[in-house]
Amino acid sequence: MQDMQNGDSPQEVNQVGDTEDPSKFLGDIIGAPVVVKLNSDIVFRGTLQSVDGYMNISLERCREVDHNNKVVRDYGEAFVRGNNVIYICLDDGSV
Amino acid sequence: MQDMQNGDSPQEVNQVGDTEDPSKFLGDIIGAPVVVKLNSDIVFRGTLQSVDGYMNISLERCREVDHNNKVVRDYGEAFVRGNNVIYICLDDGSV
Amino acid sequence: MQDMQNGDSPQEVNQVGDTEDPSKFLGDIIGAPVVVKLNSDIVFRGTLQSVDGYMNISLERCREVDHNNKVVRDYGEAFVRGNNVIYICLDDGSV
Amino acid sequence: MQDMQNGDSPQEVNQVGDTEDPSKFLGDIIGAPVVVKLNSDIVFRGTLQSVDGYMNISLERCREVDHNNKVVRDYGEAFVRGNNVIYICLDDGSV
Amino acid sequence: MQDMQNGDSPQEVNQVGDTEDPSKFLGDIIGAPVVVKLNSDIVFRGTLQSVDGYMNISLERCREVDHNNKVVRDYGEAFVRGNNVIYICLDDGSV
Amino acid sequence: MQDMQNGDSPQEVNQVGDTEDPSKFLGDIIGAPVVVKLNSDIVFRGTLQSVDGYMNISLERCREVDHNNKVVRDYGEAFVRGNNVIYICLDDGSV
Amino acid sequence: MQDMQNGDSPQEVNQVGDTEDPSKFLGDIIGAPVVVKLNSDIVFRGTLQSVDGYMNISLERCREVDHNNKVVRDYGEAFVRGNNVIYICLDDGSV
Repeated sequence: MQDMQNGDSPQEVNQVGDTEDPSKFLGDIIGAPVVVKLNSDIVFRGTLQSVDGYMNISLERCREVDHNNKVVRDYGEAFVRGNNVIYICLDDGSV
Repeated sequence: MQDMQNGDSPQEVNQVGDTEDPSKFLGDIIGAPVVVKLNSDIVFRGTLQSVDGYMNISLERCREVDHNNKVVRDYGEAFVRGNNVIYICLDDGSV
Repeated sequence: MQDMQNGDSPQEVNQVGDTEDPSKFLGDIIGAPVVVKLNSDIVFRGTLQSVDGYMNISLERCREVDHNNKVVRDYGEAFVRGNNVIYICLDDGSV
Repeated sequence: MQDMQNGDSPQEVNQVGDTEDPSKFLGDIIGAPVVVKLNSDIVFRGTLQSVDGYMNISLERCREVDHNNKVVRDYGEAFVRGNNVIYICLDDGSV
Repeated sequence: MQDMQNGDSPQEVNQVGDTEDPSKFLGDIIGAPVVVKLNSDIVFRGTLQSVDGYMNISLERCREVDHNNKVVRDYGEAFVRGNNVIYICLDDGSV
Repeated sequence: MQDMQNGDSPQEVNQVGDTEDPSKFLGDIIGAPVVVKLNSDIVFRGTLQSVDGYMNISLERCREVDHNNKVVRDYGEAFVRGNNVIYICLDDGSV
Repeated sequence: MQDMQNGDSPQEVNQVGDTEDPSKFLGDIIGAPVVVKLNSDIVFRGTLQSVDGYMNISLERCREVDHNNKVVRDYGEAFVRGNNVIYICLDDGSV
């Protein structure tokens, strides 16, 4: 019988089965162009320079884009605090 | 007499009884098409590639769909941060 | 003299007195039809298949219903992340 | 010199002085009719059956009421996840 | 060189200097009339009966007041979950 | 190789470099007039009496001001729960 | 087989690969002009004086700017609580 937790964080899901690890994907795209969506409806495009244990991210050539992908601000290098990140995906130009 | 906690996370519920484990369901659908609803009213469809201990998820053939299931963006592979996930279910085309 | 905490999670309330345990109710309704209200104004109806230590839930025959209890989506089996749950109650058809 | 924390949870306030304990009030009202206000502007009336260490609550004869105290749903027994609770008070009919 | 944290909770600020302790103020006003502002724009007036380690609060003669200080509900005794508290101040009638 | 965390709290950023400490600034302004902005768009002006390890704050001569700096409420002494604080700055009258 | 967590904080992503560390960027810009975006749509410009383990930040010559970069308030020195930070980037005047 396992003790139950239902907190927001850290909430644990028990054993899922033999799967790779989502962070492997992150490791594979270091140095690649990415799209990063943040909580506050902010979308960044830039080069994923590094990711730390808290999913804090540093991006190079970081641009904030609007819903039509138009650049609204060019930040150069930016540090994004991990808990604001919703998703990260490769920017192959089609996104 | 048990000590009381009422924090958001990690909040614990004590002993529930002999039940399977919700994460077994996740394990069973690795590699399957899924629908993932996120906090910010974002719905992803894609193939569940992996899930880690924090419910971070990597999806292949990941598409963002609107309320009418129309694809609004095609992300290819995406990393979704676990705390944004509301629910995951099998995508048998009927959803 | 006890040390004070006032964090969101894990926030603790000290000794309450000899009461059953709310999770006993959850254990009793495994396998039963339930209504689950989530943070984002989402209401699920389904069969409570399992609950884990973080109140992650797997539901069978899971349907999303609107405020008039009309089914808007039929998910079959779904995994709901615990921190999104507001309340769970038995679905005796009267709810 | 004490180390400073200013996190949401678990945030601690240091020594307050010799006071009873708020949870004593909860212990005293087990089995009594209560009003429970939740984060999402939901108000429950019901009999407080049990409270656990995470302020998860089980209520019997649980009814959801609107701002005019009109019953909008009758849930019978319900499990309410602790982190959604704002306040609990005795329901002496005057509330 | 100190390790960096930037989580919501528990977030720590390091050494601040020889100051009293904010909780001393709370200790001093036990038994006094207070105003308590909660996250959801709720304002309570009542007698501060007790505060625990998680800033859970029990109030006697607890009334909910609107922006014009008009009593909208009289709760008698109420338990307020600590993480919903924004601020507490003495109610000297001028507030 | 470092383990990754991306929780809201406690989220850690690793080694930053030899910098002073932001809390030194807080220590320096104990007893000084400050402006404190809270999450719920509330702005307090008052004398910073003390700060604890959780950034809970006690303010003397605490006034709530509107966007035009007009005092809307005078609280005398107030206890502000740390997790609601966005920023604190010196009140040199120019703010 | 790794234990699963999916809490908001601290949520961990496992091993990502040999990358620098995002906090290195922060270390490099101590003393430099920066732009800091906060949760509540607040944008600060100022000189990054220090960052601690919780990403609490002290800024000198801190000005709050509106969406057109017009200074709406001049704070001099300010302490910003880390969990409100979304991103930090160099202010080379082009932002």
